[in-house]
Amino acid sequence: MPHIRIVVVGPKFEGNVGAIARSMANFGLDDLVLVNPCPIGDDAYRRAKHGSDILDDAEIVDTIREAVEGCTLVVGTSGVITYGDKNCARVPLPVRQFAEKVKDYEEPIAILFGREDIGLLQEELEKCDLLVTIPTNEEYPILNLSHAATIVMYELFDGKLNEPAKMNEHNKDLLFESFNQLMIEGDYPEHRRHDTEVLFRRMMGRAVVTRYEYNVIMGVFNDAVKKIQGKRGAL
Amino acid sequence: MPHIRIVVVGPKFEGNVGAIARSMANFGLDDLVLVNPCPIGDDAYRRAKHGSDILDDAEIVDTIREAVEGCTLVVGTSGVITYGDKNCARVPLPVRQFAEKVKDYEEPIAILFGREDIGLLQEELEKCDLLVTIPTNEEYPILNLSHAATIVMYELFDGKLNEPAKMNEHNKDLLFESFNQLMIEGDYPEHRRHDTEVLFRRMMGRAVVTRYEYNVIMGVFNDAVKKIQGKRGAL
Repeated sequence: MPHIRIVVVGPKFEGNVGAIARSMANFGLDDLVLVNPCPIGDDAYRRAKHGSDILDDAEIVDTIREAVEGCTLVVGTSGVITYGDKNCARVPLPVRQFAEKVKDYEEPIAILFGREDIGLLQEELEKCDLLVTIPTNEEYPILNLSHAATIVMYELFDGKLNEPAKMNEHNKDLLFESFNQLMIEGDYPEHRRHDTEVLFRRMMGRAVVTRYEYNVIMGVFNDAVKKIQGKRGAL
Repeated sequence: MPHIRIVVVGPKFEGNVGAIARSMANFGLDDLVLVNPCPIGDDAYRRAKHGSDILDDAEIVDTIREAVEGCTLVVGTSGVITYGDKNCARVPLPVRQFAEKVKDYEEPIAILFGREDIGLLQEELEKCDLLVTIPTNEEYPILNLSHAATIVMYELFDGKLNEPAKMNEHNKDLLFESFNQLMIEGDYPEHRRHDTEVLFRRMMGRAVVTRYEYNVIMGVFNDAVKKIQGKRGAL
């Protein structure tokens, strides 16, 4: 993931700035620059939560030129896309495609978010190398500022979940053996066993079973098999 | 896209409910159910903007059972993932995988979002068919409620951007012809023309040129060619 700077241009509500700082912490970013913001006070800090350090360290500048200093790629964001007319500055890339394109980019990137009401001005958009947008319902495309910024950060975040250990091949064989045993001992009709084994195998495949789940389910089958065998012994 | 119902359980801040209603309008959803919410007043409506109809129509109920009535799949959301322990109710699917899985699902789906501070309770999660989470920075995984809901809605929204007309094959041939003409008339070294044509072709390929852009660029080339030809005529 390249270094990402979040630049908020002319925010009018400090709550939005605080919410952006919080989301930056959620997605592992820390470089925030504000261009001519409203005063940043209690409401911003209340909403920043664990992102308050980011708010403390935010740089405040007067111009976009200062805000993007040191960044090789300057990216504008806009919810208003005007196809059909010939406004080149407003031909955007959907945010997911943008995230894929810059995944291996090594130069710093500045991403500009505009004012709550009018967004980025035409002359500001024209200075951007790229315009990014979030696909939305055409009838009401304008997202709240901090929500839009959060979706962009989410798309750029390269986090995989730490997934729990999956059932391995050996576990799998034992599970299906156990299931077969259950069908045999339970007097499940012989002519249906093969198809039912396949059905069970497919279900487990779709569920992507963890090792722990495998252990639990196999325990259930084995207990039932033992119970049946015990009963038969008692007869 | 299946029918999606957004269920917010025990929200404490009406602003979050309003922000969720706005995002629902942004992503074309309209079925909102609130379980034991805080009072919904001015702050919620102020933040709902064009989502205020959704807020008006939101159903308020006392139990999750009532909230999910009519939904075949009940999905919980959680930012706290506890791998390693054996808490099955907390083994989640990342939200993108979830969105892909249910894309062609035809039954109604309820998605539950929990309280701002403690999320969904263990016994509430256990009633869900599936748990979904948003990959985040492990050091601070807890997103603001309305931001989390917005990311889930964004992932479920199947909107493609209405892309502008791309340059077609015929346009393309004319553009490269024009570019070649420019090299010839501009006395660009003959032995480098082939490689430079390939380079130009690759650049245009990466840029995915729109028809309008094609027209503009070709105009520039053709004007230059004409100018050179005119000068030559004058000599």
